Amino acid sequence: MIKRQAFFIVMLVLCSELLSAQTRQIINIPDIEGYQTLKCDFHMHTVFSDGTVWPTVRVEEAWKEGLDAISITDHIEYRPHSIDVVADHNRSYDLAKPLADQSEILLIKGTEITRGMPPGHLNALFITNANLLELEDVRAAVKEARDQGAFIMWNHPCWDAQQPDSVVWWDDHSYFFENDMLHGIEVYNWEFCPEAMDWANEKNLTMMGNSDVHDPMEVNGGHRPMTLVFAKSRTIGGIKEALFDGRTAVYYDNTIAGRSEFLEPLFFESLDFSKSPLRLKNKESRVIKITNNSDVDYELELVQPGVGFDAQENITLKAHHVTALSLTGNSDEVANAANLNVYYRIKNMLTGVDESLVITFTFRNN
Amino acid sequence: MIKRQAFFIVMLVLCSELLSAQTRQIINIPDIEGYQTLKCDFHMHTVFSDGTVWPTVRVEEAWKEGLDAISITDHIEYRPHSIDVVADHNRSYDLAKPLADQSEILLIKGTEITRGMPPGHLNALFITNANLLELEDVRAAVKEARDQGAFIMWNHPCWDAQQPDSVVWWDDHSYFFENDMLHGIEVYNWEFCPEAMDWANEKNLTMMGNSDVHDPMEVNGGHRPMTLVFAKSRTIGGIKEALFDGRTAVYYDNTIAGRSEFLEPLFFESLDFSKSPLRLKNKESRVIKITNNSDVDYELELVQPGVGFDAQENITLKAHHVTALSLTGNSDEVANAANLNVYYRIKNMLTGVDESLVITFTFRNN
Amino acid sequence: MIKRQAFFIVMLVLCSELLSAQTRQIINIPDIEGYQTLKCDFHMHTVFSDGTVWPTVRVEEAWKEGLDAISITDHIEYRPHSIDVVADHNRSYDLAKPLADQSEILLIKGTEITRGMPPGHLNALFITNANLLELEDVRAAVKEARDQGAFIMWNHPCWDAQQPDSVVWWDDHSYFFENDMLHGIEVYNWEFCPEAMDWANEKNLTMMGNSDVHDPMEVNGGHRPMTLVFAKSRTIGGIKEALFDGRTAVYYDNTIAGRSEFLEPLFFESLDFSKSPLRLKNKESRVIKITNNSDVDYELELVQPGVGFDAQENITLKAHHVTALSLTGNSDEVANAANLNVYYRIKNMLTGVDESLVITFTFRNN
Amino acid sequence: MIKRQAFFIVMLVLCSELLSAQTRQIINIPDIEGYQTLKCDFHMHTVFSDGTVWPTVRVEEAWKEGLDAISITDHIEYRPHSIDVVADHNRSYDLAKPLADQSEILLIKGTEITRGMPPGHLNALFITNANLLELEDVRAAVKEARDQGAFIMWNHPCWDAQQPDSVVWWDDHSYFFENDMLHGIEVYNWEFCPEAMDWANEKNLTMMGNSDVHDPMEVNGGHRPMTLVFAKSRTIGGIKEALFDGRTAVYYDNTIAGRSEFLEPLFFESLDFSKSPLRLKNKESRVIKITNNSDVDYELELVQPGVGFDAQENITLKAHHVTALSLTGNSDEVANAANLNVYYRIKNMLTGVDESLVITFTFRNN
Repeated sequence: MIKRQAFFIVMLVLCSELLSAQTRQIINIPDIEGYQTLKCDFHMHTVFSDGTVWPTVRVEEAWKEGLDAISITDHIEYRPHSIDVVADHNRSYDLAKPLADQSEILLIKGTEITRGMPPGHLNALFITNANLLELEDVRAAVKEARDQGAFIMWNHPCWDAQQPDSVVWWDDHSYFFENDMLHGIEVYNWEFCPEAMDWANEKNLTMMGNSDVHDPMEVNGGHRPMTLVFAKSRTIGGIKEALFDGRTAVYYDNTIAGRSEFLEPLFFESLDFSKSPLRLKNKESRVIKITNNSDVDYELELVQPGVGFDAQENITLKAHHVTALSLTGNSDEVANAANLNVYYRIKNMLTGVDESLVITFTFRNN
Repeated sequence: MIKRQAFFIVMLVLCSELLSAQTRQIINIPDIEGYQTLKCDFHMHTVFSDGTVWPTVRVEEAWKEGLDAISITDHIEYRPHSIDVVADHNRSYDLAKPLADQSEILLIKGTEITRGMPPGHLNALFITNANLLELEDVRAAVKEARDQGAFIMWNHPCWDAQQPDSVVWWDDHSYFFENDMLHGIEVYNWEFCPEAMDWANEKNLTMMGNSDVHDPMEVNGGHRPMTLVFAKSRTIGGIKEALFDGRTAVYYDNTIAGRSEFLEPLFFESLDFSKSPLRLKNKESRVIKITNNSDVDYELELVQPGVGFDAQENITLKAHHVTALSLTGNSDEVANAANLNVYYRIKNMLTGVDESLVITFTFRNN
Repeated sequence: MIKRQAFFIVMLVLCSELLSAQTRQIINIPDIEGYQTLKCDFHMHTVFSDGTVWPTVRVEEAWKEGLDAISITDHIEYRPHSIDVVADHNRSYDLAKPLADQSEILLIKGTEITRGMPPGHLNALFITNANLLELEDVRAAVKEARDQGAFIMWNHPCWDAQQPDSVVWWDDHSYFFENDMLHGIEVYNWEFCPEAMDWANEKNLTMMGNSDVHDPMEVNGGHRPMTLVFAKSRTIGGIKEALFDGRTAVYYDNTIAGRSEFLEPLFFESLDFSKSPLRLKNKESRVIKITNNSDVDYELELVQPGVGFDAQENITLKAHHVTALSLTGNSDEVANAANLNVYYRIKNMLTGVDESLVITFTFRNN
Repeated sequence: MIKRQAFFIVMLVLCSELLSAQTRQIINIPDIEGYQTLKCDFHMHTVFSDGTVWPTVRVEEAWKEGLDAISITDHIEYRPHSIDVVADHNRSYDLAKPLADQSEILLIKGTEITRGMPPGHLNALFITNANLLELEDVRAAVKEARDQGAFIMWNHPCWDAQQPDSVVWWDDHSYFFENDMLHGIEVYNWEFCPEAMDWANEKNLTMMGNSDVHDPMEVNGGHRPMTLVFAKSRTIGGIKEALFDGRTAVYYDNTIAGRSEFLEPLFFESLDFSKSPLRLKNKESRVIKITNNSDVDYELELVQPGVGFDAQENITLKAHHVTALSLTGNSDEVANAANLNVYYRIKNMLTGVDESLVITFTFRNN
């Protein structure tokens, strides 16, 4: 036998330095009244299914990118590396857990139930034992997940490999939905899925957006797609409650999709501007300096001119910058207005497929 | 005569949009106890001396880059464009003032008294009338500045065009210094000047760092050199008081130079970390996650090991990131320590030519 | 009198270092058969009209950004700085010329004849004396330009300050066009002007794209809008001949607009790929590695499937990268084809308002 | 059994698109007279030893980053994932080979013989069967590698985990060196190793620079450390011949280390400048515009002034930019010189620990 003692000591030292080697980005999306805004990715793979990285890599990536919670959701039924990688379905979670604990990444036990369409691919989150889900009958597998208390979501309904001609809601999905076995749907996975957005709104399904990453994550100076979870606490329990309660939004590229009740406070919590009275008069201009502390460049389009004044048609509130919004009086009465209301559409905050959030800026005038 | 009416209307509209066209960066250097940290550049030129931009450009640049205050300091005695640009020495200030007011950039009236060495170039800030400084005798000119209440600083003492062989403090400088005509010195102007740093420390001169920009400002994703002013208010009066009182630091590249009394609070105000007890034991490790909210990557080097534990030798607290600092117990007594003290040198916070700030992290242990 | 001798010596030394202080980018847009592709900007301002920089700044910017030729086109009729800047209309050219010569930037004498609409703003390039164009009657002014041999272009026809409701071709433009007083039109100036593109195609006007920069140029890691001139030589004469002959394209953002006869060779001269036979067979795939040596990310969309094989629907040939294009046989006959033709639309090479270049890749198969 | 047929079809289609999904960077380091300059990394790990990625990831990374050749060198003796990953020592090569062939990455079969110090870690490249190297006696293992025709290199001699106090050349290394079992040494692995550079120069060992990557590769806009191989052909045989012949240089950060015979032509092949006569005269200046087509910012320092003229002390030839080098006559005789020679040290081309390449620019004068 080869003496490896000195060698092992070295390796152990290196392992304890794991976290120190990497700095963690901060994702600047504000909390909203009553909730913490947790940054989560609930869909990803490792060598234990068809991914190409070790489970710990998913935790390191989450730490570096500033996420709060992840779920490794290896396929039960598709494990192309199984000749070389020999383990049960709970193994990727078990391998990732110690590093998740050390780095305070919330690791949610999950898996992907993988079928052709229907019903396609379904993620089960908050399961207790993935091995019990390896069942031939998909309804039995999903039922087992539900019985373990899982939150179940339909993944990438728009994937053209599974729905090449039109994006259909199948009987299976109705069955799952009616039997408390379908709680969420991926509105974003590689690309935005309009049908998923519509169904989420119609059926009150929780909106999810995930990376479904298989290879090492590449963010290229941006951020991965993620689910924003509005949770009462930064705990797995807090996330579970929020998911079952539909308190999410989907953040991808420079866009947030979700319900107005969450998007509106997210927008306003991102901003700072002076509350002192503008004292706008006819033919004069006033400038409001708006600081955007978030990572999102908000793109605004005027919906309706103010009463007695003009405002800019289009304006971008650039992330981590101050933007000047100027108002110009066009009637004598403006001088008497107590407040000035301006209505803007936030083009990159989607509340529906062709709908975006409309907000009202109320500036004190006198 | 040509009818320009329609044309003029168009142009006027454009001018009122000036501010709106540009967003403003935020310079993240924190305030410290008792003072606001104002970001200032007190040395720059326009076409009214040997610069190549109109005075308003200096205000626009300041707005875009996130500065609080600037001074346009055109040379009295060197105006190479004077064949084409015909105006008195107050003109660049007057042209810049309206835009400065609109954008809330504090514009300090200043000028540069320009001679060969000695005494070289001197900026006079907070003057009231630059024209009165056009005097043949340099002592008379500086006296006039002082009589206007000016703060007077020696610019770029290390400039090799004026001090090619060695950097000398001349009799003229002693004369000015002794007669209340020399209050500050440029520690940084294009490059760090060690002699200026020494003199500032020895003679209690206010440390200044400025861009001396002549052409359009280029920041290339970084920031211009600047003077950080620790002021009681964001006003010209607040800056004046602070300058005469020596409450400044110099910020260039990724470095801050100044006195410990300002650098230490700047460092700690930049950071957030948990105050909960570590409960470190022998042969165990604990990780402290330090959030650096400032724009500076702080570079730390261990000065002295802790009592009963080891800490990382070198660590960089990256700007706008979270860094994990790990401590490892190396004696049984560490378990009993109430607090753990770690001593780091902040390599890029200079208190002298070869000296940098040493700080103590005190982490609660029990 | 103040002794400035030592001071002056210093300043002269600095001036001779002007070029050395700055490095020059390289704009990678290839030459095409028979022509050099010159990168030009024919519309810009200085403090001598309503700009905010000294004329030499325009040359420095051109040098740094990699341009071949520029024209400073200060307004004859709009000089808001004229209280302070006192000079005739040739002065900005004269001040810029020595630095242009030193840095081998081709400086074309030009000016902007500035009126309300109609006819709006017209640039006259290759003039000999701008002062003679200061005439009340716009037709007289344009005629004088033509008599000086000028190439005359209509600037920003889409500018909503001048054409707020619809973009109209006025009688004046017909008059100029019919009398050899209108040769080019700005298809791009701050934004793309569809009407200008249509008129350029219909009337065979030379397509121009310029920055119309007033403030210091900001390129933010990209490039300014520019006119690509396909010239027989890198000389002012070569450019003049090319402009009168319509040999231009317009390059802005990541888009090139122009006639197919120039765009097609530009596209293919940008690329390298192997000419060895693919030997594609049914149900097999072959990959062609295409190197794009230009600065443009070409965005391709399949127009028509090949005979006997499939090709990717959408592919981006990223600038300065190698992209793999894969072909997959779908019939047995493909094995016998001598060549494989694939037809792609280059979405960011515009030949008309809603038309883009279609090219044919011909790959040797056997 | 679960029906996976539809599912599998989808997965197969995805796999054939592997290459298409990623574009390939181009590393711009020129070929030199007689040789192609191949970009190689001969040291990396996968889940089959202590790495965290699947072997194909190493090929994808190499393709994306523009490398020509790699060797996966999993440890024989250290396989911490062996509970889950069950395979022999040739497996990582076998899994990576098909993708390497498809993407034309030259994949060299290799492994890392892993011991405490002495002799530390040794890579064996161009082996035929890694399994035969699993021998208790390190000399036997290395002999087996040599008998398989391997090129053998000493990895990271400066690794402080193995050589904490001083970097020593042990008897084992002499034994290997004298018995044709040690051919190369890592001059760079995470950091530059001065002792390795000295030994490479003294003993004529081949200089190697590698990433030793364990996790997913992160290049952050830069490039990984690599070995430049000057090969007669882009083949595995060409590389093997070049390695045994010592034809390499090491490229890391913005630095190239190697022998002058390779560095000098690399430098000059990177550059273009005009050969036309300067006709420099006393008190005049001439500017030579030097285009640097490589990815390296060359940092030049004047070694010796020219005869009859001055040249800049310090100049950086920025990658993919044109830099102006100016010469100024300081004697009348310069006008008669046929050629002007200027001697610069290239500070970031290292030929020894404290030595860098000195080159001569010869500019035609008359």
